[in-house]
Amino acid sequence: MSHVAIVLAAGQGTRMKSPLPKACHLVAGRPMLGWALEAVAATGPSRTLVVVGHRAELVEALLPPGVESCLQSSQLGTGHATLQAVSLLGTLDPETTVLVVPGDAPMMSAEVLSGLLSAREDSGADLAILTADLADPTGYGRVVRNPDSSVQRVVEQRDADPATLAITEVNAGFYAFAAETLVAGLAALSPDNDQGELYLTDLVGITVGSGGRVLPVSADESVVSGINTQTQLAAANTARRRAILEEWMVAGVAVTDPDRTYVDFRVELAAGVQLYPGVHLEGATVVGSGAVVGPDVFAIDATIGPGARVWYAVLRQAEVGPGCEVGPYASLRPGTVLRQGAKAGTFVELKQTVVGEDAKVPHLSYLGDAIVGAGANVGAGTITCNFDGHQKHQTRIGEGAFVGSNTMLVAPVSIGAGAVTGAGSVITKDVEDGALGLERSPQRNLPGYAAKRRARYRAAERDQPTEGH
Amino acid sequence: MSHVAIVLAAGQGTRMKSPLPKACHLVAGRPMLGWALEAVAATGPSRTLVVVGHRAELVEALLPPGVESCLQSSQLGTGHATLQAVSLLGTLDPETTVLVVPGDAPMMSAEVLSGLLSAREDSGADLAILTADLADPTGYGRVVRNPDSSVQRVVEQRDADPATLAITEVNAGFYAFAAETLVAGLAALSPDNDQGELYLTDLVGITVGSGGRVLPVSADESVVSGINTQTQLAAANTARRRAILEEWMVAGVAVTDPDRTYVDFRVELAAGVQLYPGVHLEGATVVGSGAVVGPDVFAIDATIGPGARVWYAVLRQAEVGPGCEVGPYASLRPGTVLRQGAKAGTFVELKQTVVGEDAKVPHLSYLGDAIVGAGANVGAGTITCNFDGHQKHQTRIGEGAFVGSNTMLVAPVSIGAGAVTGAGSVITKDVEDGALGLERSPQRNLPGYAAKRRARYRAAERDQPTEGH
Amino acid sequence: MSHVAIVLAAGQGTRMKSPLPKACHLVAGRPMLGWALEAVAATGPSRTLVVVGHRAELVEALLPPGVESCLQSSQLGTGHATLQAVSLLGTLDPETTVLVVPGDAPMMSAEVLSGLLSAREDSGADLAILTADLADPTGYGRVVRNPDSSVQRVVEQRDADPATLAITEVNAGFYAFAAETLVAGLAALSPDNDQGELYLTDLVGITVGSGGRVLPVSADESVVSGINTQTQLAAANTARRRAILEEWMVAGVAVTDPDRTYVDFRVELAAGVQLYPGVHLEGATVVGSGAVVGPDVFAIDATIGPGARVWYAVLRQAEVGPGCEVGPYASLRPGTVLRQGAKAGTFVELKQTVVGEDAKVPHLSYLGDAIVGAGANVGAGTITCNFDGHQKHQTRIGEGAFVGSNTMLVAPVSIGAGAVTGAGSVITKDVEDGALGLERSPQRNLPGYAAKRRARYRAAERDQPTEGH
Repeated sequence: MSHVAIVLAAGQGTRMKSPLPKACHLVAGRPMLGWALEAVAATGPSRTLVVVGHRAELVEALLPPGVESCLQSSQLGTGHATLQAVSLLGTLDPETTVLVVPGDAPMMSAEVLSGLLSAREDSGADLAILTADLADPTGYGRVVRNPDSSVQRVVEQRDADPATLAITEVNAGFYAFAAETLVAGLAALSPDNDQGELYLTDLVGITVGSGGRVLPVSADESVVSGINTQTQLAAANTARRRAILEEWMVAGVAVTDPDRTYVDFRVELAAGVQLYPGVHLEGATVVGSGAVVGPDVFAIDATIGPGARVWYAVLRQAEVGPGCEVGPYASLRPGTVLRQGAKAGTFVELKQTVVGEDAKVPHLSYLGDAIVGAGANVGAGTITCNFDGHQKHQTRIGEGAFVGSNTMLVAPVSIGAGAVTGAGSVITKDVEDGALGLERSPQRNLPGYAAKRRARYRAAERDQPTEGH
Repeated sequence: MSHVAIVLAAGQGTRMKSPLPKACHLVAGRPMLGWALEAVAATGPSRTLVVVGHRAELVEALLPPGVESCLQSSQLGTGHATLQAVSLLGTLDPETTVLVVPGDAPMMSAEVLSGLLSAREDSGADLAILTADLADPTGYGRVVRNPDSSVQRVVEQRDADPATLAITEVNAGFYAFAAETLVAGLAALSPDNDQGELYLTDLVGITVGSGGRVLPVSADESVVSGINTQTQLAAANTARRRAILEEWMVAGVAVTDPDRTYVDFRVELAAGVQLYPGVHLEGATVVGSGAVVGPDVFAIDATIGPGARVWYAVLRQAEVGPGCEVGPYASLRPGTVLRQGAKAGTFVELKQTVVGEDAKVPHLSYLGDAIVGAGANVGAGTITCNFDGHQKHQTRIGEGAFVGSNTMLVAPVSIGAGAVTGAGSVITKDVEDGALGLERSPQRNLPGYAAKRRARYRAAERDQPTEGH
Repeated sequence: MSHVAIVLAAGQGTRMKSPLPKACHLVAGRPMLGWALEAVAATGPSRTLVVVGHRAELVEALLPPGVESCLQSSQLGTGHATLQAVSLLGTLDPETTVLVVPGDAPMMSAEVLSGLLSAREDSGADLAILTADLADPTGYGRVVRNPDSSVQRVVEQRDADPATLAITEVNAGFYAFAAETLVAGLAALSPDNDQGELYLTDLVGITVGSGGRVLPVSADESVVSGINTQTQLAAANTARRRAILEEWMVAGVAVTDPDRTYVDFRVELAAGVQLYPGVHLEGATVVGSGAVVGPDVFAIDATIGPGARVWYAVLRQAEVGPGCEVGPYASLRPGTVLRQGAKAGTFVELKQTVVGEDAKVPHLSYLGDAIVGAGANVGAGTITCNFDGHQKHQTRIGEGAFVGSNTMLVAPVSIGAGAVTGAGSVITKDVEDGALGLERSPQRNLPGYAAKRRARYRAAERDQPTEGH
């Protein structure tokens, strides 16, 4: 049977006290709405509508092609939100199922949604709802059952009396309606409650009251929990991250401490990868087999090749080749490419720079807009002076070149293949292949200087006190 | 009714094997005694006495104004400690309540103490004690009840027989005495036990024995637990930190992983702050709305302005303005001020330095005792030579100046507004506004140098082997 | 009574999808097999044989002197593996106990093994086995008991019917056989199962079937759990690390967050050490009393002296003396020695370098193959140019020397005691005691340069757009 899906994502999430609409908050690197849309898409709906409201443009920006948005311009409740979507759907076959799900339940799964759909379709019930038994049901609508255990209605927290509040079975906010049941029910909704809003939950009682059948489908709390607070958001992040890591561990990734390892949903890891604690892998990061990552690495949209060793490092849109070494204490900024066996060592920052095979940048260097040839060695303290205060210029270091410590490469400039620069040189003109480029004065030694300096200080001491370092 | 408070903080905490007195150990950045004193103060006692003993001077240093200390010069038990305090209190109204609490129970709350006080005062009992039901009561005094469930006495672990040891209800060590009950009870105490000490717990039995009434007030284990071991101290830290973060999350702070985020009790966070894992905020640190902090930041007594981005950084007594960028890998030492929009980037250390609006110190620099004007750009590798081996001197960089890479600024020295320095220059004399300061020799290129060098090495190779990098 | 021990370590651990044999995976820094061998050794066996198979050479490399290896060349099951070992043992006294344990249960303890041995020896049973009651027994052989609760047999997961699968008591894989029972049982084993393998577990049924007595000894799940997946490996790491930290906390080590502190099994810590989160101590690292380590320190085979402060640092085979300061952001590579009171500060990398008493290397320096005298001060940006492209050379800095900022020390070179170098100097020749070594050109200031530069840029702007930094 065919079905359409409505995702409710209009809410502000007031209790989160965040400038973002609720559905935009990230869980394991993906907006909550994204998790909902993925699960919904896997059920194969003929159409999917997302109801947007608070800061609608931010929510709409998250919608993949083919998913439609529907604006709820005033926040008048979930029933009102659903009504907006239904009015866009046009005339539906009465037996079509309309799946209505919250946009703020990032642990939902395609399996649970498919189960809800099948339950309605197989039973012919007018409405199937997910319910969950919660240790602490505060904030949720309670499921009131008849003496024969069939569903009577759902009562929102704010409208519930103490006896109803004691019920622990709640409406999880997931519905599979027969289309005619939904349309008829929405028409019968009234804003007769504390908030003057239209509650979708009232459709349970309305459906029952008009002789319809409501089928409860029980689900696990962990799967259907909605996010209303920062604490719940943090817990959802922990749960999703853990689930992601479990899958990677099954696939052969070794994780020293899964509770301290942060891998977002789009990341790809090969079997044999080892992740140490304090690793954050975000975006479209890919790590190859046998790579050892961490402790304390942040990588976004980065590629780490097989057998590479990356620790105490930050990688943004950078590519680390097979067998490379990065860190400890390195920052690879966008456009960095390390070819096989290259090294970006300690206190090294690279930007828009390609480091050739087996070339080394071992310490205390900044290279920007540079191309380093295979096998070159870049001495400690080397800096590309790539910015002249106005624009950026390129530096080229040839294959097998030996750049002396603390060489300033004033771009645009080129060091030839196999060329050498003297330590401490400011290189403003190209150095030919195999040549030495040198900028230096003669060294002078002044004997007895230290004694004279001490005497000078001693004289100065009469005037002012010394300070600590 | 009025009451006075006695806090017992004389203990060494032998099992912690620490040089500090037990009450001085930190929980979420505050000494255990501090947590006790805060809860006590909130009950509004007319006087508060802290009994000190082991390394008394360290404990006394923690006392706020108005809280009195009382020395127990020999460690003769909690009864003896209380006796010292009572002897300082002078004559008390017989109906005054004397609240006696341990100094090593950092999870105690004002609510629980107020409840204990009210319980005694409202009931007119001679003594009210807090009890808790523990899964593992080892180490605590057991509450022995009469067949009618009234309290009979408390038996210390070391004096208990197996049947008594099996009791799981323990004396939590919190007492609200009628003053005359306390005075009379202390007078009746005897050191008739394994340790030859005076136990405050014996006052329960003494009070009962002399016809008094002891009211048990049950409390949650997590609130009254005392700290006797490093393991318990670690657990208390975890619990307090979690409670602090829960409050901030309710206030709108987003926390990626609350179990890996360390926020001390005095820190102030605005709604909309985002904290990544590995963040330690200590002292009087303040973070403004929309700031993103972490991963892996340590900040003590620091200010981070709204919208700032600080990651992989250490901040000590530093001030980061609105919209600033800090890190990855930056150290801001005391006296650092970044004005709005300024940047302290990668491998940058600042000390006693003000960086003006929108000025940038992007990489590999050390600035100490410096003032950087608005909009200035400080090239990679720039260092203020602020220490001459004898004292520190100041460096001034004017507005909009462009300091070339690897400039050595030999302080005292001044770079004028809009001035420029050449890469690799050692600047010992002031550079006027708009001028170029340059210290450099001409570059010489020596063709064929690399081939000669190789030949020299080849000759040397006959004598000795090469080593790895 | 005497006993011999057989450890089964031939398995590949297919589900871990790792290139390593299962027994080689590390738990708290020690291969799983190492944990087994330690527990076995503590029971005092007359001989210990380890059955190796998959990548045998890697497993054999882990065996301490006196432990024998025995190759199972085809993976034909645990019974077959045991048979290989027994055939090497020669004729055994029939009453000798043969202890057979898995090599992949890193939480096992000597106490549990001794208990199993005593149980058999004291009871005279033909076989004693460890059993555990598991919440999730999936994957384990189930213990089928007779109506009188004596053991009937063990059924492997793959051979079990649903009723048997529902049993939660499992065979933990630890056996104490009377030698004759084992020899007779192995002879009776048949590969009559799904996999065509010989299962050691079948000896339970065989022993019972031939009238022998099998004694079940119940053990805690946490102690006997085997490792078959990366998830279980991670959990074992967490458990072992926690147990190690608990011991150190009892010994007086303060640990801010035991869940985020990683101390391997061989590390030695003194009472009064403070460990912050994100600390990894590996290998033979030793930390002295009062040292404060972390946050975010990685140390392997390092020594940290009493009272030292090390944070945000990586130490490999380095020695940090009493009262030293290291970090934030320092890397001490092999051969680094900091004498008492020395400092390796921020963005400092040291390698094969000795820093004398109270000498300071505060910022942005790389020293390799250097000796720094007591009390010397090494300015920011100082670099030893220790590698000439061919080999390494040594640098000597004398006592009390003052090396100016950004000094390049072109090794081999020596700075005399009390000598000074000028900021930005490239020092290629030795500087005598007390002298000043200087390499510098005169500074020239060019007034009006900035205005001319702006004009040039403005002209260039017509041709190409500028880019961001």
